[in-house]
Amino acid sequence: MSRFLDRFSRLKPELDTGFSSTASGRFLNENGIPNVRRSGLNPLEKYSWYHLMINLNSWRFIVLLILGYISINILFAVIYYTIGIEHLTGINRSNFLDELMDVFFFSSQTFTTVGYGRIAPVGFLASLVATFEAFIGLLFFAIATGLFYGRFSRPRAFLKFSENALIAPYQGVTALMLRLAPYKNNLLTDAEVIITAAISNRDQSDSQTEFFILKTELSKISTLVLNWTVVHKIDQDSPFFGGVEELLKSANVEVFVQIRAFDEGFASTVVQRTSFTTDEIVVGAKFLPMFRPSADHKTTILDLDKISAFEKVNLP
Amino acid sequence: MSRFLDRFSRLKPELDTGFSSTASGRFLNENGIPNVRRSGLNPLEKYSWYHLMINLNSWRFIVLLILGYISINILFAVIYYTIGIEHLTGINRSNFLDELMDVFFFSSQTFTTVGYGRIAPVGFLASLVATFEAFIGLLFFAIATGLFYGRFSRPRAFLKFSENALIAPYQGVTALMLRLAPYKNNLLTDAEVIITAAISNRDQSDSQTEFFILKTELSKISTLVLNWTVVHKIDQDSPFFGGVEELLKSANVEVFVQIRAFDEGFASTVVQRTSFTTDEIVVGAKFLPMFRPSADHKTTILDLDKISAFEKVNLP
Amino acid sequence: MSRFLDRFSRLKPELDTGFSSTASGRFLNENGIPNVRRSGLNPLEKYSWYHLMINLNSWRFIVLLILGYISINILFAVIYYTIGIEHLTGINRSNFLDELMDVFFFSSQTFTTVGYGRIAPVGFLASLVATFEAFIGLLFFAIATGLFYGRFSRPRAFLKFSENALIAPYQGVTALMLRLAPYKNNLLTDAEVIITAAISNRDQSDSQTEFFILKTELSKISTLVLNWTVVHKIDQDSPFFGGVEELLKSANVEVFVQIRAFDEGFASTVVQRTSFTTDEIVVGAKFLPMFRPSADHKTTILDLDKISAFEKVNLP
Amino acid sequence: MSRFLDRFSRLKPELDTGFSSTASGRFLNENGIPNVRRSGLNPLEKYSWYHLMINLNSWRFIVLLILGYISINILFAVIYYTIGIEHLTGINRSNFLDELMDVFFFSSQTFTTVGYGRIAPVGFLASLVATFEAFIGLLFFAIATGLFYGRFSRPRAFLKFSENALIAPYQGVTALMLRLAPYKNNLLTDAEVIITAAISNRDQSDSQTEFFILKTELSKISTLVLNWTVVHKIDQDSPFFGGVEELLKSANVEVFVQIRAFDEGFASTVVQRTSFTTDEIVVGAKFLPMFRPSADHKTTILDLDKISAFEKVNLP
Repeated sequence: MSRFLDRFSRLKPELDTGFSSTASGRFLNENGIPNVRRSGLNPLEKYSWYHLMINLNSWRFIVLLILGYISINILFAVIYYTIGIEHLTGINRSNFLDELMDVFFFSSQTFTTVGYGRIAPVGFLASLVATFEAFIGLLFFAIATGLFYGRFSRPRAFLKFSENALIAPYQGVTALMLRLAPYKNNLLTDAEVIITAAISNRDQSDSQTEFFILKTELSKISTLVLNWTVVHKIDQDSPFFGGVEELLKSANVEVFVQIRAFDEGFASTVVQRTSFTTDEIVVGAKFLPMFRPSADHKTTILDLDKISAFEKVNLP
Repeated sequence: MSRFLDRFSRLKPELDTGFSSTASGRFLNENGIPNVRRSGLNPLEKYSWYHLMINLNSWRFIVLLILGYISINILFAVIYYTIGIEHLTGINRSNFLDELMDVFFFSSQTFTTVGYGRIAPVGFLASLVATFEAFIGLLFFAIATGLFYGRFSRPRAFLKFSENALIAPYQGVTALMLRLAPYKNNLLTDAEVIITAAISNRDQSDSQTEFFILKTELSKISTLVLNWTVVHKIDQDSPFFGGVEELLKSANVEVFVQIRAFDEGFASTVVQRTSFTTDEIVVGAKFLPMFRPSADHKTTILDLDKISAFEKVNLP
Repeated sequence: MSRFLDRFSRLKPELDTGFSSTASGRFLNENGIPNVRRSGLNPLEKYSWYHLMINLNSWRFIVLLILGYISINILFAVIYYTIGIEHLTGINRSNFLDELMDVFFFSSQTFTTVGYGRIAPVGFLASLVATFEAFIGLLFFAIATGLFYGRFSRPRAFLKFSENALIAPYQGVTALMLRLAPYKNNLLTDAEVIITAAISNRDQSDSQTEFFILKTELSKISTLVLNWTVVHKIDQDSPFFGGVEELLKSANVEVFVQIRAFDEGFASTVVQRTSFTTDEIVVGAKFLPMFRPSADHKTTILDLDKISAFEKVNLP
Repeated sequence: MSRFLDRFSRLKPELDTGFSSTASGRFLNENGIPNVRRSGLNPLEKYSWYHLMINLNSWRFIVLLILGYISINILFAVIYYTIGIEHLTGINRSNFLDELMDVFFFSSQTFTTVGYGRIAPVGFLASLVATFEAFIGLLFFAIATGLFYGRFSRPRAFLKFSENALIAPYQGVTALMLRLAPYKNNLLTDAEVIITAAISNRDQSDSQTEFFILKTELSKISTLVLNWTVVHKIDQDSPFFGGVEELLKSANVEVFVQIRAFDEGFASTVVQRTSFTTDEIVVGAKFLPMFRPSADHKTTILDLDKISAFEKVNLP
C-alpha cells in the first residue's frame, strides 16, 4: 500500500468532483448516467416524468401513447355503456360485445374529435360525458404535441466515444488517449473536455477513492468536425506516472470524461459523458487513423466505424 | 451595540446583493421568492400571466382550464339561445332548461370541433357565431398546448435543502454547514453556491442590515449527484467569528443560499434559492450521513429523507 | 471647440460599441431599438417574419389571425362556388348571397375540422378541395400554436427605467444617476449594467461622435428585486468632468444603458436597453425613495409609480 | 519551400482549431458547413432527422408534409378498400376508380378529424382502422406543430458577409479586411469574431496545412447594428507578413471567420461562419461606405446591397 500512497503524495487530489470518496461501485455508467439510487421519497417525487418521457426510447414512447389512447377509450366506453346505449343514437341493440365495440368506437370518435355523427349522444348525462371526453382528448393531444417537441428538440451532443482508452507512446513517453467524434450532421463549437480519474485500492473493499483531474494536451477545440483524440501525457504530474500496468493490477481505476460544447443546430450547450473502467483501458496500443481523403481529394471522409480501432505497440 | 459594530469593523460588507439595508422583514421566503410586494401598477401590468400560468400548481392549472372551457361554452350557449334555437337543427322544443342544455352541448361540440352534426347551425347568425366559436376553440387549445409545454419544460433544479443550517465542529474550529441534494433523476453539472448573510441588530426595529458574502470551502462542484454539504469555516474573515450563540441572541440573522448549475436534461442553467432565519440555525450539531452502499456494493443509495438529520455535539 | 476637445484628451474613447462616429440622429430609440433603417434588400429578406409575429402587440396579433382565417375561408368559398354548389349536399339553391354564405360556412367548418356534415362535399373536385382545405386548416392552427408559444415564452427583462437621468450630489462631488426596477413577478439574478455616453458637438451638424463607457459604482447586482439606482461618479475619468451644464449646452449627449440579467422564470439571459438624450438629463436633482415597509413591517413595498420621482437640489 | 517555412518559423501555429493538418479540400464551405463526409454508419444513424427537418428549405418542407399527407391517405384508402366498402356507409358502388376516390376522401376526413359523417365506418374492422387512423392523424399534426415551431424559433444570426476579403491600406501598412452586417430586424449584442487562416503549399498535393489565428483590431462589438469591417493588421505577427501577393500565388489560403453573438429576439447565442478561399481574396482594394444619413438626418440608412462594394487602390 505504501507504493500506492507514495504515488499520490506529490499530487493534489481533486475535491470538488461531486463524487464521494466512500461511494460504492462504478461512479458513472458507460452511458454517462451516475450510478446512484435514490431512496426516501415516494415514486412520484423521485422522477421528473418530463425527463422520463423525453428520454424514453422512441418506440416505447409511441407504444405508451397508443396504450394511453386505448385505455382512456375503454374507460369512457364503460362509462357510456353504464349510462345506457339508448342515449347514443345509431347504436343497434345486439349482443354485449358488439354493443361495447360500438360504444368504444363512439368514444374514440369523440376523443379524437372526428365526430362522424353516425353515433351521437342524446340526453344530459351522455352528452355531458362526451363534452368532457372531447376536452380530455384535446388536452391529451396538446400534451403529446409538447412531448414530441420536447423529445426532438432536446439538445444532445451526438458524440461516439472509442470503446477503450489506450496507453500509447507519445513524445518519447506515454500518454492516456481516448477518441471521440460527432456522428451526425451537427455542428459543435468550443468543445471542452474534462477528464477525471478515480483510483481506489483494489485489495481493500471499502477503501477511499482518490480523484484526480487529468491534464490534457488540448482542453478546447474551436470546431469539432472530425475526430478528437484526447491526450493526457503521463508525466510527473499524472497519477499514472511510475508504471501504469502495475497500477491497473493493484487498483480500481475509473476514467470519466465529460465533453461540453455549443451545438449550433440546437443553439444550446450540450454535454455528454462516458467512463472507462480498469478493464477498458488497454496498455500499449495506439489508435488507427479514422479519416481519409475522398477519391477526388475534394472532401475528407470520417470513418466512424473505425473510432475504436487500434493496434498493439511497444511502449518506450 | 459597540460589540455588534466591532464584530464587523474588520470585514467588508457586501454592497451588491440587490437587497436593501433598510428593507423590512425577511429578505427571501423559504421557497426562495423575494419578500417584496409591488405597488403603483394596475394588476395586469404587475404580473406576467405566463409566469403565473407556468408556475401554477398542476391541479389548479387543470381546474382553471376546465373552468375556462365550461364558462366559454355557457357564454356561447346563451348567445345561441338568444339567436333562437330554431336556427339549430336537431334541437327539440321543450322546457327552458333542456333547451339550454342542448345548446350548451352543441356549443361544446363546436368549440372542441367534434361537430357530430346531429345539431348543426342553419341561417346566417347562428352559423357565423359557430364559425367564430370553432376558431376561438382552436386558439384555446393552441394556447393550452403552449402552456403545457412551457410548464413541463421549465427548467428547475429539483434540489432539496436541509431544514436547518448547523454550526458544527470543523477542522478544530467551527463552521456553518447546510446540506442540499438533487432529488430527481436530473443531472446537474458545474453547480456553484453563493451564500450571503444578512445581519441586523434585533433591538432596534429599523436598524440597518449588513450583508456579507460567506466564503465556502468549495464554491463549485463538477457533477452534483450525491448530497453537497456546503461549509463556511468560521474564521477571522467570517462575520460569525467571536461567538455565534451571542450573535444569534442579539441579532436577526438571515442566511440565503443560491445554487446555480447546468441541467443536462433541460440543457439550461437552473437556479434555486432558500434562506435560513435565526431560529433555523442550530448551534452545536453535525449532519448524519445520508448515503450508503447498496447490499451488493454495486450502487450508492442516497437517503433523501435523511437530508435534515443531525445530532447535537459539543463545539470546540 | 478647444474646451470640447480638451475635455476628452485624457480619456480613451470607446471604439467597440458598434455605433458609428458618423451615424445620424439618435443612436437608440427610447425603447432600446437602434435607430437604423435597412435598404438594398427586398421586403421579404429584410424582416424576420417570426420576430415580427412574436413582437406584435397582442391585439394586433389576434386581429391578424382573425383576418387570415376569414380571408382563407372567403378564398375557399369562392373556389367551392366556382366548382358548383351542387357538389355540396345540404346547400339549397336560393339567391347568390345566401348560397355564398352557406359555402363560406361550409368552408370554415372544413378549415376548423368541425365538419358537422349537414353540408358535405360530393364528387371528386369538391372533395379534393375540401381534403386540401382541412390540411391547410390544420397547418394554420399548428403554426398559430407555435407562434403563441413563441410569444409567451420570449424572454423579456420586464424592467421599468426612470424617465430621466439625474446629475445628483454624491460623496461630495456629483454623479450621473438613473434608476430601474423589475415590475413583474420575475426573478432576475446577476444583473449587469453597461452605460455608454455618445457625445458630439452640437454646433457642427456632421461632427464626429465620441463614445465613452461610463464606469459605475456597482456593475453587477446578485439579485435584482428592488430598484437599482445606477451611479456613475463624475470624477477625472468621466467625460462629464469639468462642468456638466456647459457640456449639455454645447454638445448633444446620448446616454445609453444596457441591462443584462438571468431570468429564472424564462431560464434565459435577458437584455433590455434604453437611452437618455440631452433634454432628458436633469442637472441638480436626486431621486426620491421608492420603497417603504408595509404597515406590519413584514414586507417591503416597491412603489413603481415613483420610479421617476425626483426633487431639485443644489449641486456641490 | 524554404521561404514558405521561413515565413512561419516565428509564428506559433494554432493547434486547436478542430481541423486537421492533413484533411482534403476546402475546410469550410462558403455557407459555413464543414466539408466532411461521414462513413461507417447506417443512414438512419448518420442524420439527425430533426436537424434535417428544421433546416430544410421552407418550400421543400411544405411539399414533404403534403406528400406525407397524401401517401398516408392513399395507404389507408387501400386498407379500407380491402376491408370492403360495404363497411363504409355512404359510398355507392360504381367503378373501381370512383370507389377508391370516395375511400381516399373518407380517409382524409378521418385523418384530419373533419369527420363529416356522410361516409362513416360500420362494423368492427373498418371502425378499428378509422380509430387508429384518427390517432395517427393527430400525431402527424402534433409532430408538424413541433417542427413548425422548431423551424421558426431556430436561432440564426442573419448576417451577410462581403463576397471578398480585401488586402487594404491601413495605418501605413496593409490589413486583411472583410465586412459583415445584420440584415434583418434582429438585435445582436456582444458580437465576437474569430478568424483563422489555413495555409498550405500549393505545389505539393498532400502538404501539411498550418493554421493561424489572425488577430483583429476589435474582437468584440457591444451592439452590432450597422456593418462591422473586421480588420487584421498585417504586422510581424501575421502569417501574411512579407508579401501577400506572392503568398497567394504559391499557397492555398483559406480564411475562415466565425461570428458569435447574443440575439435578443431568440434570447440565445447565435453563431455564423463563412470562409474565403485564395481566389476570393482581393489584393489592393478597400471597401466603399455602406451607410449614409437619411434625407432628414434623423436616421442612418444601411445599404445592404453595397456590402461587397470595393474600389481598387494602391498598397503602401
